[in-house]
Amino acid sequence: MSQFDNAAISAHLSHVRIVMVNTTLPANIGSALRAMKTMGLSKLVLVAPKTYPHPDINALAAGAVDLIEQIEIVDTLEEAIQDCHLVFGTSARSRTIPWPLLDARPAAEKSLSAVVESKQEVAVVFGREDRGLTNEELAMANYHVTIPVNTDYGVLNVAQAIQVICYEMRMAAMAKTEEIVNPEAKMHVTDDIDMQWDEPLVEHAQMEQFYPHLEKMLAEIEFMDPKNPRLLPLRLRRLFGRIQLDRMEYHLLRGIFSRVQALNNGTWKKSTDTSTSDKDSI
Amino acid sequence: MSQFDNAAISAHLSHVRIVMVNTTLPANIGSALRAMKTMGLSKLVLVAPKTYPHPDINALAAGAVDLIEQIEIVDTLEEAIQDCHLVFGTSARSRTIPWPLLDARPAAEKSLSAVVESKQEVAVVFGREDRGLTNEELAMANYHVTIPVNTDYGVLNVAQAIQVICYEMRMAAMAKTEEIVNPEAKMHVTDDIDMQWDEPLVEHAQMEQFYPHLEKMLAEIEFMDPKNPRLLPLRLRRLFGRIQLDRMEYHLLRGIFSRVQALNNGTWKKSTDTSTSDKDSI
Repeated sequence: MSQFDNAAISAHLSHVRIVMVNTTLPANIGSALRAMKTMGLSKLVLVAPKTYPHPDINALAAGAVDLIEQIEIVDTLEEAIQDCHLVFGTSARSRTIPWPLLDARPAAEKSLSAVVESKQEVAVVFGREDRGLTNEELAMANYHVTIPVNTDYGVLNVAQAIQVICYEMRMAAMAKTEEIVNPEAKMHVTDDIDMQWDEPLVEHAQMEQFYPHLEKMLAEIEFMDPKNPRLLPLRLRRLFGRIQLDRMEYHLLRGIFSRVQALNNGTWKKSTDTSTSDKDSI
Repeated sequence: MSQFDNAAISAHLSHVRIVMVNTTLPANIGSALRAMKTMGLSKLVLVAPKTYPHPDINALAAGAVDLIEQIEIVDTLEEAIQDCHLVFGTSARSRTIPWPLLDARPAAEKSLSAVVESKQEVAVVFGREDRGLTNEELAMANYHVTIPVNTDYGVLNVAQAIQVICYEMRMAAMAKTEEIVNPEAKMHVTDDIDMQWDEPLVEHAQMEQFYPHLEKMLAEIEFMDPKNPRLLPLRLRRLFGRIQLDRMEYHLLRGIFSRVQALNNGTWKKSTDTSTSDKDSI
């Protein structure tokens, strides 16, 4: 691999951030930095770390000083991923409702396709040492990602999981870079839809306005009981999280929600009244 | 993956041993055991370890007690690999004379082919924390194996390197096992979103009822002009076509469309009227 390729790979990987939520052990942050740097990733976001800063981080980061300086500290997961398009939550356990789940390898391939082909920002979110991510945090992800392990002993710790994910990200970035340099190279990397999209994809922060709007509309038309919404909000997040809406689709759907709200509260009236007998005609 | 598959994978991986030469830090041995156990490998051979036994090994091995009991201690690398057919030496640096060199992934694929197809014993040999393997030790290997890293900062430590190698060994073992169980299967383990879904996905024929319903609802609330719908129907198809709705999601969305239609034509009325001043509150 040429020096040029290495720089190109690192440039791609600068759009893949690692997010660690409520990390307790400084050694895990240090190991994460080292794993990242070795594989060419550069952006670490810490959500409310329990112990930070700490000398063990620097000791274990073994010279990844530039990455330490770039660490971003935020209070909530939402802040950590607000400008991201594609968010992966790491999860070992099965949850209330199944989420679209990718193994580490196809998840990395999907990530680098998103970065290289449609300039997306990607986040991989890792949970607490003792109990991972909450259901609420996992619901903020478009996909869940899992590392295939011995099902009799599935106890990869967070540092090891980050190591494997970063390694797969680098492998995918190498394949993508090779593809660009040599377009004849095999395309086995992605079986995926080519996202040469006409509209930019919306960021996570916009989706955090989308779901409340949708839920409010459903509550207003009494399709959902806001006091007892059961699994409905989660199902809607899972559904729309799989799509990755583009900007036009986003405004289109929010326009529909607003129209329904206006119809419901009487601020919008139909221009004609010829279709009232139409019920059940579909 | 079934329990049977997991057992078959572990059986294959029992023929791939990890060899650590002159290891100084007990923590690295503990981490190696944990990485191995998590990925389904079971045989660790220590060549003249500097500190053994040591409580840190047990602490970091986190319950991989059965592997600790099976550890083999020998004096020389030659003893460690004497019954092996295929030996990989790990090397970050280029050496005096070039050796057949494989990246971790093809090395793992080669290893599992050797195990499954010709009952070979495989060893991957890792060197000292500070200076790796000697030229003499590297010359005992059939191949050298390297993990692709950021060439500006190639300092994967031995525990991280063992983690990546064990992960690739498991991925290759999974692919091999799948190949045996289902010879039609493609070699890559999963390129696809794992649809271990709670609900069956809807078929194309159902979606062909979904779109007309959605369009009719939008026409009724005059969000779409059926005489001149422009690109809207196409955009909606592209949007929902990306998701692959499951049956529950399908009925959920059609239920919402029906509610909006009923609201619009007056066949359904809100039970209360407290929220009429709610407009624009989102």
